[in-house]
Order: sequence, then structure tokens, then C-alpha cells
Amino acid sequence: MSDHQHIVSSFDRDLETIQAHIMKMGGMVERAISDAARSLETRDDELAEEVRGRDKAIDALEEQINQEAARVLALRAPTARDLRLILTVIKISASLERIGDYAKNMAKRTSVLTRMSPVNGSPAALRRMAREVEEMLKDVLDAYIQRDQDLAREVMQRDQDVDQMYNAIFREFLTFMMEDPRNITACMHLHFIAKNTERMGDLVTAIAEQVVYLVSGEMPDEPRPKGDQTSVDPSIAPDIRA
Amino acid sequence: MSDHQHIVSSFDRDLETIQAHIMKMGGMVERAISDAARSLETRDDELAEEVRGRDKAIDALEEQINQEAARVLALRAPTARDLRLILTVIKISASLERIGDYAKNMAKRTSVLTRMSPVNGSPAALRRMAREVEEMLKDVLDAYIQRDQDLAREVMQRDQDVDQMYNAIFREFLTFMMEDPRNITACMHLHFIAKNTERMGDLVTAIAEQVVYLVSGEMPDEPRPKGDQTSVDPSIAPDIRA
Repeated sequence: MSDHQHIVSSFDRDLETIQAHIMKMGGMVERAISDAARSLETRDDELAEEVRGRDKAIDALEEQINQEAARVLALRAPTARDLRLILTVIKISASLERIGDYAKNMAKRTSVLTRMSPVNGSPAALRRMAREVEEMLKDVLDAYIQRDQDLAREVMQRDQDVDQMYNAIFREFLTFMMEDPRNITACMHLHFIAKNTERMGDLVTAIAEQVVYLVSGEMPDEPRPKGDQTSVDPSIAPDIRA
Repeated sequence: MSDHQHIVSSFDRDLETIQAHIMKMGGMVERAISDAARSLETRDDELAEEVRGRDKAIDALEEQINQEAARVLALRAPTARDLRLILTVIKISASLERIGDYAKNMAKRTSVLTRMSPVNGSPAALRRMAREVEEMLKDVLDAYIQRDQDLAREVMQRDQDVDQMYNAIFREFLTFMMEDPRNITACMHLHFIAKNTERMGDLVTAIAEQVVYLVSGEMPDEPRPKGDQTSVDPSIAPDIRA
């Protein structure tokens, strides 16, 4: 085997290892979202505790991926598409780590919420929203591994559904709080969970953008569709004293 | 001049340019925090609108820094400390971009809040919190440019003050909402602003960690101090039906 072949193949092996770690991290984050949402719906404090405990492993994997990426950059000095691959790996693992953090936060708030009276129906709505994000994450990881920019763009579009779900939940919680002030504390926590789930959707979209960048060499042109209207639309957030 | 010297000096120029862009971006983000918090306190819709408009330039600068970093990696194949510098540049600009997003979101919510009756005292408390974050950001950028890991670690410690301010504001808003349900919508927005400001503090801390990594070659050992207790402490989030 020539030296050149030897270098190329061990470089490929490095890239494969890093990508395997990204996929492993993605799987752990999918599971964190799923379990956190289930623990919220079934008021399962033990499962919530588990999700919180497992986040450390997700963080450690991001750290490891960063170190591997730095090592490949230093030793192999990749260019063009190989360089893009390493850069996207750094960005994608950072997004995954943040999604994992939000799942952990959902589990933390679940532990608080299980000690309060339940607010009817809302955990089921939140779980539907979380499931949509989980599906998007699954698809964007497929798009990443298959270098499928069409699928990545499709995932970006679906983020609008998550935003619409969030808008509906935002309105519902406001109503619950106004109807009965005893709901306020629980609704505040549910609200943050909803907002964090909406942000998870944004982060999956950011991963999709990285897939497009990896395949095409350019960040997607179109502005990311923005569906959370609650911070700008006065009809959703009316002056209730008016 | 030898070829080697020529290469070294144009490499240094590349690094200087990128760092100058980081500092410029940092200045823009500082200003966004400051103006967003001021627009909230003085109910200045025009200033809020300005902050929202200026966020595009921050995003564009991040994109430019990413491209410059990729170019340097491809052309110069830096190693050791130079490589770390490029990697931290990518991470720091991503954190700055997110802080800018939170400032924009504060400005968006300000535009909604100016149409509602004011909630006494709270914008002043939020502005104090935002000012603390702004100071931390200023110091961490100094720490970055001076390669001062002691200052960076000091900034990390100060994030606890921001978290404590957030905890106090969280309790205060819950009380406002329970006392008068007409405050609920406004308080929800103020609440998100407080939480986002607390997250800005976390992002400044993440930048401080990158400075430590840049100078020492290792991520700081000690777990980042976590002061937001509102999602875990049942005494802060009691079951008010119990």
C-alpha cells in the first residue's frame, strides 16, 4: 500500500468515527426528548430523574467530538468538502448539545410539576409538539448521513408546524392562567417547556441548514421560516386592560 | 523577505482581521443589549425597532467570520494554538449571535409591551440585570483580546449574580400575576425577557470558557456555577393548591 493510500484511508476512518459519534449523540438526544415528554405526560418522576442524569453523557460526547474535530484539523489539514464536514460536525454537535439541555430542563420542570395539581390536557399537547421535534431530528440526522439536502430543506419547512403548535399552546396557557390564578405557577413551567420545545425545533432547523451547507457548500438562502408570532403579534398578546 | 516570513505574516494578518471582526461583533451585541433594555424601560418603541433592524448586521458578521475561519483553515492549515484560536472564533461568534438574538427578542417583546399598561418596577429590575450581562460581555471580550484567563474565570463566577437576579424577578412576577390576573400577559413577556437575559449570562459564560480553552488548551474543569433554581427548587415553585 502506498503512503498516500495509507493517509487517505486513515483520514476516512477518522471522519467515519466522528460521524458515528454524531449519530450516537443524535440517538441519545432523540431518546432524551422522547423520555422527557413521556415523563411529563405520565408524571413519572423517576424517568425525569433518569433523563437529567443522562445529559452528562451527551455533554461528554460533544466535548469528545470537538476534540476529535480539532485533532483531524491539526493532523490532516482537510480542505474543501472534508473541511466543511469537520466544520459542520462542530456546529451540529453544538446544536445537539443544546437540544439535550432543553430536554434536561423539561425533565427538571417535570420533577417540579409532579408535585403540583395537573393542568388538564396540556402535557398531551406538549408531548405531541415534542414528538414532532423528535421526528424532525430523526429525519435531519438521516439527511445528514445520506447527504440529502432535499430532506434537510423539508425538515426546515416543518419547523413552521412546531411554531404553530407553540402559538396555540401559548394562547391556551394564558387562558388557563386568567381563568384560575391557582394555575399560574404550573402554567409558567408548562409555558417554558413549550417555548423550549419550540427552540428545539429551531435548533433542528439549524442542523438542517448545516446539512445544506455540507452538501452544497452554501448556507441556504431563504430566511428560515419564523412561525412564533407570540412575541410580535399584538392580537395574540393583547392589552387585556384595554 | 523569505517565503516563510511572507506566509507567517499574512497568516497573522488573517488572524488579526478575524479577531477584529469578533471585537466589532461584540461591540454591536453590547449595544443591542443596552438599547433593548433601555427601550424596555423607557417604553421607546422606535429604539426597539432599531435594535430589531440591526440584528441582521450581527448575523451577517457571524456568517462572514465563519467564512474567514474556514478560509484560514483551508489555506493555512494552522496547528496548536493557532488552530485553537480559529476554533474559539467559531464558538465565540456563535455565542455572540445568540446573545444578539435574545436582545432582538427583548426588543420585539418591548414593542408588544409598550401597547400594554406598565407593570411597576419590573423593567428597571430587568435593565439592571441586562446591564450586569453587558458588563460581563465587555469584560469577557477584554479577557479574550488580552488572553487573560483569570479575568475570564472571574466573569464565569459573576454569572451567579445574574442567576440570583433572575430568581428574584421570577418570584416577583409570579406574585404580580397572582395578585392581579390583568397583569398575566404583560408578566409573561417580562418573564421571557428575564429568562432570556439569564441565558445571555450563560452564553457570556460559554465565551469565558472558550477564552480559558484558548489560553490554557483545556476547557475549564469546574462545573459552570448554576444559579437558576426556579426549575428545580420546589420552595420557589410550590404547589399553590396544596
